[in-house]
Amino acid sequence: MVVKVYGTAYASPKRVLVCLIEKGIEFETVPIDLIKGEHKSPEYLQLQPFGAVPVIQDGDYTLYESRAIIRYYAEKYKSQGTELLGKTIEERGLVEQWLEVEAQNYHPPIYNLTLHILFASALGFPPDEKIIKESEEKLAKVLDIYEDRLSKSKYLAGEFFSLADLSHLPFTQYLGWSHEQGVYDKEQKACECLVGYISNRPS
Amino acid sequence: MVVKVYGTAYASPKRVLVCLIEKGIEFETVPIDLIKGEHKSPEYLQLQPFGAVPVIQDGDYTLYESRAIIRYYAEKYKSQGTELLGKTIEERGLVEQWLEVEAQNYHPPIYNLTLHILFASALGFPPDEKIIKESEEKLAKVLDIYEDRLSKSKYLAGEFFSLADLSHLPFTQYLGWSHEQGVYDKEQKACECLVGYISNRPS
Repeated sequence: MVVKVYGTAYASPKRVLVCLIEKGIEFETVPIDLIKGEHKSPEYLQLQPFGAVPVIQDGDYTLYESRAIIRYYAEKYKSQGTELLGKTIEERGLVEQWLEVEAQNYHPPIYNLTLHILFASALGFPPDEKIIKESEEKLAKVLDIYEDRLSKSKYLAGEFFSLADLSHLPFTQYLGWSHEQGVYDKEQKACECLVGYISNRPS
Repeated sequence: MVVKVYGTAYASPKRVLVCLIEKGIEFETVPIDLIKGEHKSPEYLQLQPFGAVPVIQDGDYTLYESRAIIRYYAEKYKSQGTELLGKTIEERGLVEQWLEVEAQNYHPPIYNLTLHILFASALGFPPDEKIIKESEEKLAKVLDIYEDRLSKSKYLAGEFFSLADLSHLPFTQYLGWSHEQGVYDKEQKACECLVGYISNRPS
């Protein structure tokens, strides 16, 4: 059964694609154009009532929320491809901890910076300088903690690559766009930490 | 081994307490006073570098982020107390989906409303009316989707109580405080849906 992944032109669905590739799962992509409002069509809202991407369809099983989808496939194909949840319940606990850190601490500021610095004019609204400043400050604090963590362990959850690292990928490509030089330097350093090891991986 | 839970006077750590109670796990609480800044002490930052609550200590295992902790205990004590992750990988996928919906869609507006309507004056800042209005609108949309979902299945992830339902508890107690009557009505209705079945549960 080939997995259908909706909305893969956007960042969060890429989290799912990277996971499927790491696990060696066949998939096909279904484009959803947010600018044209295809995510608000009645057919799409049947799949994802919040009108967000991604959604997957796997036979008659439908699932949304990218971090739920990656957990599902990491669990379902535990012994296939890269092990992404750790080997013990304690390791999985730490994977979950850093996945939550990504979702709660890393994602909100990097998302706001991406939106207000990179996409505001294309989307037709003025960048909000207050949001940019606050997001830069928040991101800088998070990156300090990452730097410290990654000086003590090879990956976020320990000595093994996991969903927690993988989940950072889609938005980390946008790092390095901040306005303020101090934050920019930290982002560059974090970029090296977060992306460096991934680019050396065979898959 | 008794589990130590830090910061249990606050909402997010209650997510952990409810889970430990459902699983029948012994715990003791360690107070952390955020007003006094105890979460910024060097000792506490060793446990939780972001300075947030909760943290648990279970022997020499330390874990933070409430939703990571509840997943850890639901998995570790799978066959003890209430089953909270579903019985199949597909059921767990849906539990993860609705846990993410709680974290990404429900929590941000209810948190903002709680902060700006209930606690702003106690914390010494003026409530931000723009944030209140936006949060009420976002929350109203989420509650519409919950109402629809809970008209089709008994609990969020299906016919079984799970971490997804449990995770809504700490902030749902603050529902019903919105300014605007239309939102207030929806909240009352959602309150019945979300809390009704829980108050009928033996534990």
